[in-house]
Amino acid sequence: MARALVLEEKGRLALREIELKVEPGPGEVAIDIDTVGICGSDVHYYTHGRIGHFVVEAPMVLGHEAAGTVSALGEGVTGLSVGDRVCMEPGVPDPRSRASRLGMYNVDPAVTFWATPPIHGLLTPRVTHPAEYCFKLPDHVSFAEGAMVEPFAIGMQAAAKAGITPGDTAAVIGAGPIGIMVALAALAGGCARVIVADLSAEKLAIAAAYDGIETVDIRERPLAETVAEATGGWGADIVFECAGAPPAYATMFDSLRPGGTAVLVGLPVEPVPFDTNAAIAREATIRTVFRYANVFDRAVALIASGKVDLTPLISATFPFEESVSAFERAAEGRASDVKLQIKL
Amino acid sequence: MARALVLEEKGRLALREIELKVEPGPGEVAIDIDTVGICGSDVHYYTHGRIGHFVVEAPMVLGHEAAGTVSALGEGVTGLSVGDRVCMEPGVPDPRSRASRLGMYNVDPAVTFWATPPIHGLLTPRVTHPAEYCFKLPDHVSFAEGAMVEPFAIGMQAAAKAGITPGDTAAVIGAGPIGIMVALAALAGGCARVIVADLSAEKLAIAAAYDGIETVDIRERPLAETVAEATGGWGADIVFECAGAPPAYATMFDSLRPGGTAVLVGLPVEPVPFDTNAAIAREATIRTVFRYANVFDRAVALIASGKVDLTPLISATFPFEESVSAFERAAEGRASDVKLQIKL
Amino acid sequence: MARALVLEEKGRLALREIELKVEPGPGEVAIDIDTVGICGSDVHYYTHGRIGHFVVEAPMVLGHEAAGTVSALGEGVTGLSVGDRVCMEPGVPDPRSRASRLGMYNVDPAVTFWATPPIHGLLTPRVTHPAEYCFKLPDHVSFAEGAMVEPFAIGMQAAAKAGITPGDTAAVIGAGPIGIMVALAALAGGCARVIVADLSAEKLAIAAAYDGIETVDIRERPLAETVAEATGGWGADIVFECAGAPPAYATMFDSLRPGGTAVLVGLPVEPVPFDTNAAIAREATIRTVFRYANVFDRAVALIASGKVDLTPLISATFPFEESVSAFERAAEGRASDVKLQIKL
Amino acid sequence: MARALVLEEKGRLALREIELKVEPGPGEVAIDIDTVGICGSDVHYYTHGRIGHFVVEAPMVLGHEAAGTVSALGEGVTGLSVGDRVCMEPGVPDPRSRASRLGMYNVDPAVTFWATPPIHGLLTPRVTHPAEYCFKLPDHVSFAEGAMVEPFAIGMQAAAKAGITPGDTAAVIGAGPIGIMVALAALAGGCARVIVADLSAEKLAIAAAYDGIETVDIRERPLAETVAEATGGWGADIVFECAGAPPAYATMFDSLRPGGTAVLVGLPVEPVPFDTNAAIAREATIRTVFRYANVFDRAVALIASGKVDLTPLISATFPFEESVSAFERAAEGRASDVKLQIKL
Repeated sequence: MARALVLEEKGRLALREIELKVEPGPGEVAIDIDTVGICGSDVHYYTHGRIGHFVVEAPMVLGHEAAGTVSALGEGVTGLSVGDRVCMEPGVPDPRSRASRLGMYNVDPAVTFWATPPIHGLLTPRVTHPAEYCFKLPDHVSFAEGAMVEPFAIGMQAAAKAGITPGDTAAVIGAGPIGIMVALAALAGGCARVIVADLSAEKLAIAAAYDGIETVDIRERPLAETVAEATGGWGADIVFECAGAPPAYATMFDSLRPGGTAVLVGLPVEPVPFDTNAAIAREATIRTVFRYANVFDRAVALIASGKVDLTPLISATFPFEESVSAFERAAEGRASDVKLQIKL
Repeated sequence: MARALVLEEKGRLALREIELKVEPGPGEVAIDIDTVGICGSDVHYYTHGRIGHFVVEAPMVLGHEAAGTVSALGEGVTGLSVGDRVCMEPGVPDPRSRASRLGMYNVDPAVTFWATPPIHGLLTPRVTHPAEYCFKLPDHVSFAEGAMVEPFAIGMQAAAKAGITPGDTAAVIGAGPIGIMVALAALAGGCARVIVADLSAEKLAIAAAYDGIETVDIRERPLAETVAEATGGWGADIVFECAGAPPAYATMFDSLRPGGTAVLVGLPVEPVPFDTNAAIAREATIRTVFRYANVFDRAVALIASGKVDLTPLISATFPFEESVSAFERAAEGRASDVKLQIKL
Repeated sequence: MARALVLEEKGRLALREIELKVEPGPGEVAIDIDTVGICGSDVHYYTHGRIGHFVVEAPMVLGHEAAGTVSALGEGVTGLSVGDRVCMEPGVPDPRSRASRLGMYNVDPAVTFWATPPIHGLLTPRVTHPAEYCFKLPDHVSFAEGAMVEPFAIGMQAAAKAGITPGDTAAVIGAGPIGIMVALAALAGGCARVIVADLSAEKLAIAAAYDGIETVDIRERPLAETVAEATGGWGADIVFECAGAPPAYATMFDSLRPGGTAVLVGLPVEPVPFDTNAAIAREATIRTVFRYANVFDRAVALIASGKVDLTPLISATFPFEESVSAFERAAEGRASDVKLQIKL
Repeated sequence: MARALVLEEKGRLALREIELKVEPGPGEVAIDIDTVGICGSDVHYYTHGRIGHFVVEAPMVLGHEAAGTVSALGEGVTGLSVGDRVCMEPGVPDPRSRASRLGMYNVDPAVTFWATPPIHGLLTPRVTHPAEYCFKLPDHVSFAEGAMVEPFAIGMQAAAKAGITPGDTAAVIGAGPIGIMVALAALAGGCARVIVADLSAEKLAIAAAYDGIETVDIRERPLAETVAEATGGWGADIVFECAGAPPAYATMFDSLRPGGTAVLVGLPVEPVPFDTNAAIAREATIRTVFRYANVFDRAVALIASGKVDLTPLISATFPFEESVSAFERAAEGRASDVKLQIKL
C-alpha cells in the first residue's frame, strides 16, 4: 500500500493509501518521486471524469509530469544507477509493434500512459518505469525543471514536426501552457522570432517576457495583420495552432506564407470547418502532433544548455499533503497560472 | 488576327477571328498548336463565367492543355529548335519573385496562366510561350499524349507532394479525370497498389482497367473498410482526396495509417468540416496541391518510358471547327468521358 | 539435432546434424523452410572465413534469405497462423534500444543476424524467429520469390533512402545481383528510367531484359557521357553506387545533376578517394545504406502487385542435399548467375 | 570612372580609378557601399591569382561581403526605396534556368558572383545589383553587421542542409571563420550545443567565448572521444566538416551517431580518402554546401532578433584608403583575426 492522490470518480479527489506496484520488473527502475506538475488533462479527468473515449471507471492515481531519483534497478538494467536524478516519459508502447518499429511509438495503439484510464499516474512517493523511458537530469537542472520536461516535450514534438528552417518566423495561436511551450521550443529550435496570439492580456504578458517572443492581442488586431507587417506581407513560415478553437481554424492560413506549414497542436472538441481553399492556394503543409516520441533527451539538452528557461512558468508549488488544494486551484483556470507543481 | 475559340461571356462560345500575339518575344518561341484537351476549368468558365475570384469580363480564348510544334524562335532562345514537338506548361511566373526563387513558382501571385482571366488560352493555331516552359516530346509520344501532360501534371504534383515511399499503398477518393491522373501518377511514382473510390460504376470501370488499380464503389462499401482489409487493418500510407466533397473530408482519415499522409487535390466549394481529432490521433500529415511546379519533364519521362499510358483516357477527339460542339459535350459531364480533345 | 549446411571453418562445408533451437519462445514462431537463396556474404564466409570484423570461429549454419511455412506459434503470437506462408527479415534488434526507438533498428549495435557469426543461419529444415519479422506471402507469390525478398530488400532500402521524386532518372553503377535489385526497386519505386553501368556484357544483358532499364558497357563508353546524352546534359537525379569500386567513387558525381543524390550501397574494401569538390560543386546529397528497416512488407507488396518480377534472376535451384555443390557453384562467381537457390 | 581596390594580377593590388557600371538597369538598384568584409577567397585571389578553374586574367575589383545604402532605383523596382540600408547577396543566377526554377539558384552554372573572375567585386563606393538580391537591414543592425551576413550565410546554408532537429548536438571540425559561422548558425538554428574542434588554441578561444559552444583541442584529445563523453557514447547528431583537411575526412564518422548527418562545408584541395564503411555502418547521410540560396533574409532575421551576435568576430576595421594594408594583414592569416573589414 502506498499513499497517493486518487481520483475516486469525477469531481472527487482523495489523498489516501492504495495498492500500487513499487518493485521494478526486468528492464525497469523504481523512482522516488520529487516533483509532479499538474497537467490540464489531470484537471479535466478531475472535473469531467473523461477525455474523449477515455473514461475514469475506477479510482485512479493522477499525475504524469514528474522528476525524481532512481532508487532501485530491475533485472538487466544498464545505463542508469541508483541515485540518478531523472525525468520520465509517461507513455510506454509495445516496442515490437508496427508503429514502434517505424519510430513512431507515440501512435502505437498499445501505448499505456500514466494517469490515462485505467493506468495509475505518479502522484505517489514511488513508481516503477522502463529504464529506456527515464532520462538523466544534469546536476544543474532542478527537479522542478525536470517535471517541466513532459509539457515542454509537446512543444518539442510540435517544433520537430514543423520542420523549422533556421531563421524562420513562426506564429503561435494560443498563449496557454501549451502555446508557450510551443513558442519556446520553436525559438530554441531555430526560429528567429515567434509571434504569439491570444485574447488574454494576462497570458500574453507571460509569453512576452521572453526574448524573441512578440505578442498580439487578437481582440485588438488580427494575427494575420500583425504577421503581414512583420514579414513584409509574405506571411509566417509556420503557424502553430495551440488553441483548438474553431475561429483559429477559420483564419490560420491567412497568416501563413506560400508553401508554409501549419502545425495542429490544439484539440478541437468537434470537427471544425477548415478553410481548405486557403490552404490549397498557398500549397500549405499541415502537420499534426500526438504527444511526442524521441524528444525527451532533446528537451533535457535544451534546458541544460540554458537555451530554454522554464522556471518562470512555474506559478506555484504545493506540498504533497496539499495536493487536493493544488487541484482545486488548477481547476480555477487562472490566466496567470501556467504550471502548478506538487513537491513530495 | 487569328481564328480561336472565344468565350464571349458566360454560356456563349464562338469560333472567330480575334487579335492575338503570335510573334515570339525574347526568350519565347512560337508554337503551332496540334491538339488541345478540354479541362474542367475551361468548361466551368463556359458554364459559370467564373472560378472563384477569376471572372470572365471580356472575351477570352479557352484552352490550356496542348501540344504542338515549335515554329519560330525569339531572341536568345537555346535548347529548342524549329520543328521540335513540344507540350507547354501553361503558368508563367515572375522568375525573380520570392516564391520563384524558392522553387515554388506555382504559388507566385504574379503567375499568368492560359485561359485564366484575363489571359487568353491556346485554342488557336499559333501561340507564343517562354522557351523554358516548353518540353520536348520524344518521337514516339503523340501530340494527343502530349496534350495529356498538363492534366497528368496535377497527378504528378500530388504524387510528388505525397512523399511516396516505394511500395506504399494509396487510396484515391474520386474517380474523375483528376482522380485517375493521381492514381496513375501514384502507381508510376512508387506505390505498389492504389485503391480508387467513387460512387459512379462507370468511372470506376475506367480506372479498374489499369493494372495495379483496385476500385471500391462507396455506395456498396466504405473505403475505410476496403482499405482495412487490404492492409491487415493498418490503413493506407497515403490518401489522395480528389473529390472536393465534404463527405470525403469527414471520413478520409479513417482510411489512413498512423503517421500517414493525406493529400488534398480536390477543391471544395466552401470550407468543410474537418475531423481534426482523427488526423491528430494518427499524427497525420496533410499536403495540399496547387497546380504544379517542376513536374512536366518528369511527366513526359514517365509517358515516354511506357510506365504511364494515358491514351485510354482520351474519350473522343473533335476537329477544331467543331470546338463548340466539343465544349457542349464536355458540359454534359458524361461519366464515361475522361478527356475530350480538339485537333487543329 | 537437426540437419543443416554447416560452415565448419573457412573453405570447409558439411551437410550434417547439429544442435539447433527449433521450439519457438514467447513472441516467436517456428518456420518450416522451403527455399533458401545463397547470398554473396554466405559465399564470402565460405571462401574467406570472415567479413570485416565478423569472423567464423566455430561451426556456423549458413543462409539468411528464405521463405517457408509457419509450423508452430510461441506464446502470445497474434497475426500469424500455422500454415501461413512467410518470408523472414533476418536481423533482430533489441526493440528497446535507442536506435530501435528512432525507427532505425537496422543500425542497432545489438542486432543479431542469421549467418553472421556467431549466429546460425537457416539452411536447415526448421527455424524459429520473432513473429514481427515474418511477413506473409500472398498465395500467388511463390516460395522462390519469397526467398528473393531479402536481397530485394537491399534495393528497397536504397530506393527509399534515395528519396525518389516520381519520374526521376537514375544511374546504377554495377550490374551484379545488388545492382539489379537496386535498379528494379528504383524503377518500381518511381523512377521513369534507370541506366545500369558495368563492364560485364553478360551481366548487362540480364539487366537489359527488363523494361525501363538501359545499360552501358563502361569499357566502351563512360557512364557520364551516356547519362548526359539521356538527360540533355543535366545529369541523373540519383546515382546508386553498387560496385564498391574505387574507380566508381572517383567519377560518380560526373553523372549526377545539380542537387542530386548519390546512394552508396556497395562496400569498398578500404577507404576510397572521394571527389569531394565534384560533390560540393553540385551540392550533392549522399545517402548510405546498411541492410534495411521497414521494407519487407513493401517489397512483398511490389512483388505481389506484379510491378517487380524477380523470377528471371533465379539462375538455378539445387536440392538441399546438394547444398555443398550449390555453394561451390556460387563460389565460381559466374557472370550469368544472379541468384542460386536451394530447395528443402 | 570610379575608385576601387583592384587586383591587377596575382600579388599586386592597387587602389585606383577604373571603369565600373554605376547606373542601375531595369530591376536593379544602386548601392552606396559603407562596409566591406575581406573574405578568404579575396585573399586567395590576391596571393594565388586563382581558385580552381577561376583565374584572374585581367584587373578585377575585389570584395563581395558588404552593406550599404540604396541610392538609386532602376526601372520597375518595387519593395526598395532610396535610403534603405541593405546587405547584398553576391551571386546572381539566370532566374529562368533549370536550377533556378528548382529553387537551387546557387548551383546554376550561369551564376555571376562579385569578385569571381571575370566579374568585378564591390570594394568601390557605388555598385549596382538586382533588387531581389538586396536585403533590408533593420535600423538596429549596423553596416558592420550587415557586411557579416554574407559569411554568416554559409553557416546558415550548412545549418539548413543539416536538417537540424531541435535539441541536436553538433560537432564542428575547424574553428576558422567558416567553422565559427557554422557553429553559430547551428546553435541559433536549433542545436542545444555545439562542440568545435581545432588545433589552434587561439581560434578555439574565440569560439569558446560564445554560450553553447564547447571546444576541444584535437592535439590533446580526439574529437570522437569528447563527443562520446558528451553524448553518453551515442555520437553527435550532426558533424560539420569545415576544415577541408584530409585527416578530418578520415575520422569524422567516428563522432557521428547512427543515422546522423555529416555536412561538408570545407573544400579539400584534392580528392580525399573517405571512410565509406564507417559512413555506411551508421547509415550516415552526407550533405554538401555550395555557397547558399534563400538564406540572406533568415540570416538578417537571426541577427536582428539578437539570437546571433557577430560583432565579436570583427577583428579590425580599416579605412578604404588603407585597403591594401588590410589585405596584407589578411594575407598574414593571424589566428586571432576572424574577420577584417574595410569602411568606405
